[in-house]
Amino acid sequence: MKKKNKKVNAAIVVIGNEILSGRTQDKNVSFISNWLNNSCGISVVEVRIIPDHEKTIINTIKEMSKKNNYVFTTGGIGPTHDDITSESISKAFKTKYEINKEAYKILENYYGKKEFNEPRKKMAKMPKGSKLIYNPSSAAPGFIIKNVLVLPGVPSILNSMIENCKKFLIKGSKTHSKTVNLFTVESKISRELEDIQEKFIKYVSIGSYPFFRLGKVGVSVVLRSISKSKIKMAYSDLLKVIRNKKIKTLSI
Amino acid sequence: MKKKNKKVNAAIVVIGNEILSGRTQDKNVSFISNWLNNSCGISVVEVRIIPDHEKTIINTIKEMSKKNNYVFTTGGIGPTHDDITSESISKAFKTKYEINKEAYKILENYYGKKEFNEPRKKMAKMPKGSKLIYNPSSAAPGFIIKNVLVLPGVPSILNSMIENCKKFLIKGSKTHSKTVNLFTVESKISRELEDIQEKFIKYVSIGSYPFFRLGKVGVSVVLRSISKSKIKMAYSDLLKVIRNKKIKTLSI
Repeated sequence: MKKKNKKVNAAIVVIGNEILSGRTQDKNVSFISNWLNNSCGISVVEVRIIPDHEKTIINTIKEMSKKNNYVFTTGGIGPTHDDITSESISKAFKTKYEINKEAYKILENYYGKKEFNEPRKKMAKMPKGSKLIYNPSSAAPGFIIKNVLVLPGVPSILNSMIENCKKFLIKGSKTHSKTVNLFTVESKISRELEDIQEKFIKYVSIGSYPFFRLGKVGVSVVLRSISKSKIKMAYSDLLKVIRNKKIKTLSI
Repeated sequence: MKKKNKKVNAAIVVIGNEILSGRTQDKNVSFISNWLNNSCGISVVEVRIIPDHEKTIINTIKEMSKKNNYVFTTGGIGPTHDDITSESISKAFKTKYEINKEAYKILENYYGKKEFNEPRKKMAKMPKGSKLIYNPSSAAPGFIIKNVLVLPGVPSILNSMIENCKKFLIKGSKTHSKTVNLFTVESKISRELEDIQEKFIKYVSIGSYPFFRLGKVGVSVVLRSISKSKIKMAYSDLLKVIRNKKIKTLSI
């Protein structure tokens, strides 16, 4: 990875009718988001799920590419007629959509000359000037063009490729987090949480999420910050509230 | 439900840092999307996942509300400081953010006067002119203002409320679908699928999705259309391909 920067952000664009229709449960957003934060210090600030529709892909990529340091796309880079991501991204950047020689060789090697048919050759086509993101599980590579990293939709394949994205990314500051699970209800601690949030407004983001476990209701309080010491300070304030109110905690 | 219309669409706006950060796996998109299609004939055409950030919520709601028949939001309507959805939507529509009397009564009844504290009273605040979406599981209602339906983020609570959205929606034409699971690879059928897609381009949308099951690779072909008979016709063409190529199918 390249030089370190403070705030680096990314958007994820999930491309696929099957996610929008509810047929398929997306699993890539949380995977990419966790990986980006933990391995690269990059925060995902927006996700869009859009259909396999050329104009929508073009407009979304143009907008997201301008607004964010990086854009990750998932889906639509296979060999069938509904795989239109690569060609649409070429159009978004007004670059030629053409055979990438390196990708062609990789795929020809993988399938063998005889089995390397036209639909499979399509998977070697991408915007001119793309660099490959290698695919250790099924050969067909992803690619990066400008600040857009293009990945497949199948989670197991995407997961196997994610480390190969790293060399293209500038590292940011990792967001650390601490979760405290309390056997209480939100309304019993909301004023105190707000006070702590006010006190650390510049450094720590505090989230409050109800949970149901072992037949009991509870609240997960999540402290997030790029500074571990600020989290520690906010946590120490939270501990005082927990003790004062005699709230039971649950460690997971 | 009100009068029938042909094409009715919706967007879903998921509001929550915990989804963006990857801490929590969203489950509401596929649930809402399936319900809207199956129960109301409404298609979800775009999803956005955004942070608990006022300006972002305001801008997203304004844009999505203009572009779609309906907008469904999830998350950010609880009693804590990070629950800013209702107030932000009031600002998006420049309507007063105030106590809704009916919601106030419901919550007062549910908690009892003594336990109905300030944080809980916050859950009765919403944009002026909102109509309530009743909540059979934990009382705190959602609401609809203009074409925006505001729901909680906790899946079990959201699920229990969804039927109460129906009376506010115009019914569209349901999209039917037929899935065929083939033990083959995409590149072996992609040309034929493209031909069938071309033939039915106006009526049927054909998707092709690789799967891995029982140690074998396969392809799910999904035919989607508002016309059952057009699906039948496209399916009959697909059957010919399957027979000609002697492809085994898997019924699930």
